[in-house]
Amino acid sequence: MTGLFVVLEGGDSVGKTTQARCLDRWLDRAGVSHLLTREPGDTAVGARIRSLLLDPASGAISPKAEALLYNADRAQHLDEVVRPALSRGQMVICDRYVDSTLAYQGAGRVLEAGEIASLARWATDGLRPDLTILLDADPAETTAKIVDKDRLEAESLDFHRRVRAEFLRLAGTDPEHYLVLAARDSRESIAAAIRHRLAPLLGISEELSDLDGIVAP
Amino acid sequence: MTGLFVVLEGGDSVGKTTQARCLDRWLDRAGVSHLLTREPGDTAVGARIRSLLLDPASGAISPKAEALLYNADRAQHLDEVVRPALSRGQMVICDRYVDSTLAYQGAGRVLEAGEIASLARWATDGLRPDLTILLDADPAETTAKIVDKDRLEAESLDFHRRVRAEFLRLAGTDPEHYLVLAARDSRESIAAAIRHRLAPLLGISEELSDLDGIVAP
Repeated sequence: MTGLFVVLEGGDSVGKTTQARCLDRWLDRAGVSHLLTREPGDTAVGARIRSLLLDPASGAISPKAEALLYNADRAQHLDEVVRPALSRGQMVICDRYVDSTLAYQGAGRVLEAGEIASLARWATDGLRPDLTILLDADPAETTAKIVDKDRLEAESLDFHRRVRAEFLRLAGTDPEHYLVLAARDSRESIAAAIRHRLAPLLGISEELSDLDGIVAP
Repeated sequence: MTGLFVVLEGGDSVGKTTQARCLDRWLDRAGVSHLLTREPGDTAVGARIRSLLLDPASGAISPKAEALLYNADRAQHLDEVVRPALSRGQMVICDRYVDSTLAYQGAGRVLEAGEIASLARWATDGLRPDLTILLDADPAETTAKIVDKDRLEAESLDFHRRVRAEFLRLAGTDPEHYLVLAARDSRESIAAAIRHRLAPLLGISEELSDLDGIVAP
């Protein structure tokens, strides 16, 4: 019996962390054993890779080096955190996963999509999420407004538009494993839509999905 | 017109650095424009990857994460250092390259050899050395004697034996592009054998190969 593997995806500042927190509270109340985690950086090795990747002082990282670093973080994270939790039967909610590499390093950097996909497949031993929740937003309304940007956030609007298009394309190829939500919608309505989709997968009651107050900050 | 790409390979403490220094002096005297470099770590990004890989404090790095990190360093190093030098027509002498990954992460870690090879091929865009100089030694006589070992050096003797066997196997499959030398031989005779093999490739006189005193420390 393996746990449910759920991934939150989307551009920068679309509200993934907020929704992860909402999910966390709901699952606590429902008594579902779960783990919140994120890429990159949720292991000791990964934290060093994350700082290397996001620190503007790293300067120009070659596109292939960047893709390899994200996948190194991912391989470590799966081995050390995700797979052990899933095999304990825990639900795992991960902020970013393979689609982020496909979108940012593939579409964003114009590396060959098939090659990036096989790199990620190798790094993950083919582990795919049971559900990916994509919070979709126009980067002109989100990323462009961030102050103190990290190395990736500081890319051009055009780069972030290619990233968004790739996220949507990926969701379109496998609708059964995606839930695409408009990040502009209210936090509460997004959280409700997520609960509505997850409740049957977790076999927990719809009532729990409708509890009031669980999306409060 | 592209420069000659020469790689020094072998286990730990076999004398690669010493031989690189001998080569450096010889090439200086012969007036051959060249660059000494090494993997991992010869870029700003690479230095951080190197410290992550070799620091015993990093703890258990998963085999795939390790292979991905070495290749990330390599992709960056090729982009930033090796390819620019080669296309300026400089000879490049690199301490460790793809064979080290195949030996340490493939044979050493028991990852699938074909997969590691295609990972390295992708990271390097297929760039292969014109000549690989393999300094071969029994790890019982070299690695086992190192004090203050780094994370890889601290592996078992059995690990280092698998690494050695893989280096020799790789050399055996393509003898035209390898020079295998016994690391037990004297520093001077190894340096002379290297000069003997390189002189015709560089189109420089045999006399220069026989200069006295150029292997002094």
